[in-house]
Amino acid sequence: MPPIVTLIGKPDSGKTTLLEKLIPELAKRGFRIGTIKHHVHEFEMDKPGKDTWRHKQAGAHTVALSSPTGLGVIRDVDHDSSLEELVGRYYHDVDLVIAEGYKRLALPKIEVHRRALHPDPLAGRDASWVAMVSDVELGSELPCFDINDAAKLADFLVERFIKPFPKQKTTLLVNNQPIALNSFVESFIRQAVTGMTKSLKGCEQAEEIVITIRKGAQDD
Amino acid sequence: MPPIVTLIGKPDSGKTTLLEKLIPELAKRGFRIGTIKHHVHEFEMDKPGKDTWRHKQAGAHTVALSSPTGLGVIRDVDHDSSLEELVGRYYHDVDLVIAEGYKRLALPKIEVHRRALHPDPLAGRDASWVAMVSDVELGSELPCFDINDAAKLADFLVERFIKPFPKQKTTLLVNNQPIALNSFVESFIRQAVTGMTKSLKGCEQAEEIVITIRKGAQDD
Repeated sequence: MPPIVTLIGKPDSGKTTLLEKLIPELAKRGFRIGTIKHHVHEFEMDKPGKDTWRHKQAGAHTVALSSPTGLGVIRDVDHDSSLEELVGRYYHDVDLVIAEGYKRLALPKIEVHRRALHPDPLAGRDASWVAMVSDVELGSELPCFDINDAAKLADFLVERFIKPFPKQKTTLLVNNQPIALNSFVESFIRQAVTGMTKSLKGCEQAEEIVITIRKGAQDD
Repeated sequence: MPPIVTLIGKPDSGKTTLLEKLIPELAKRGFRIGTIKHHVHEFEMDKPGKDTWRHKQAGAHTVALSSPTGLGVIRDVDHDSSLEELVGRYYHDVDLVIAEGYKRLALPKIEVHRRALHPDPLAGRDASWVAMVSDVELGSELPCFDINDAAKLADFLVERFIKPFPKQKTTLLVNNQPIALNSFVESFIRQAVTGMTKSLKGCEQAEEIVITIRKGAQDD
């Protein structure tokens, strides 16, 4: 799984505007960025009137639009997905995930602050704060970035989160939760699965192997 | 993987209108339906102006909107995804996938026909045609359904595709392609992986196990 940071701040503090500057800075440095937005209200993502939108309105559980350059999947879920579940399932090929709206999780937080909106930032409520972004000078012990200087924040994210992160080769999700693997277990599972599948037709040059097992009604 | 059928027919023959009637009929019978639309032109799914749309415009590789009832993921891809790849990755929990725009594949085809648009249906060009849907009586040997009678078509799909399909417990995707597993290999892999992970913390009551392995630059 790639590293995850969360962006917090009051509504209209400029989180999306900051991301619009930050993402191109990170992309320019050669990294693939993923974003996740949490939404508690009614779900709406597709364009009204489009075929996929009409399928979903008619009651389809999952709809997808697939093209040679892009892919979109919209689906029903029966629970609020955890960030780890989303990242484990859909973000395997990005270098950094930036999430918005997950204030209560103990993940690294970057607070976006605007003096006019809230005189006092939330910063430092706990150890999960890693940086501040503001339109004024803040007397904080945390690294502080000018809200208009996305390049410096991008450098910080690369050094602090992207570079140190080992590219894990094996991930294990059980009941949608990622399971921590020490290096012995990671190597054991990886080599066992690679060996077990190697002689199957189509598996000789495996760059990626994904096995999914679901418990059936009457298991042997 | 769930069963897949494809819907073919000329533009404006009424494929989407048919789906708008067919999906609720299948949902009423208790089945989860997935749809996939293939698109060769520029990719566009999100609502202009929305935060996720702004993230994507700024160059994010993958964006998601997550809520307690719905989930949407829009991402870049570097190749035109095969139907099997899409279904293997994103449709594990639906009962039937109905795809549109994959005319050249040897998957079961249902042709939607309107006399005014094309006097002669394409039907029977090869053995992949399984049914016709039309606004006129067709002298075809295939099962023919009235374009306004989605209930009968739903019954046909349930009997022919959903019911006979075994719920496969183990799926193996290698380099994005599903690998066929006979029942010995399926059972061997399933029991080996289940046993191998069982003693790890968090894996005791595994209802679903997903293992992803990617080849690294310097593998041991």
